[in-house]
Amino acid sequence: MKFPVLVEVKLREGIADPQGATIERALPALGFAGVEGVRVGKAIRFMVEAPDETAARALVTKLCERFLTNPVIEDADITVG
Amino acid sequence: MKFPVLVEVKLREGIADPQGATIERALPALGFAGVEGVRVGKAIRFMVEAPDETAARALVTKLCERFLTNPVIEDADITVG
Repeated sequence: MKFPVLVEVKLREGIADPQGATIERALPALGFAGVEGVRVGKAIRFMVEAPDETAARALVTKLCERFLTNPVIEDADITVG
Repeated sequence: MKFPVLVEVKLREGIADPQGATIERALPALGFAGVEGVRVGKAIRFMVEAPDETAARALVTKLCERFLTNPVIEDADITVG
């Protein structure tokens, strides 16, 4: 079976996010007030072939640890199906 | 009130995604079979101050159109709350 997967890669708390900080600093000058705590991560979507959802999740977890994230500074949220 | 917001910025269908294609091409050599259709987008999270959820969503929609996406090649999925 094929399962749709979404992996959200986020910077860990406490890790500086210059891209988010730049967006946040720019917004008031562009007329958008009231936005704070901007953090920019990655949203990776793909299809994975696996016998069941548990196997799909296990494969994606390994994929995240080994390849899609830098575990020193990033965390991944995995959504299968 | 403050609302947590997630904006997922995705490349529109049909727009080439070299980053996703590179991941997909690399995976078999790393021992991960059965992954296809990899698309890499952005996941932007922040807090927005607004009187209610409708107003928050309206503000974020404007923000996406004007600033967070390139509407020629990108789409945004907005989740408020």
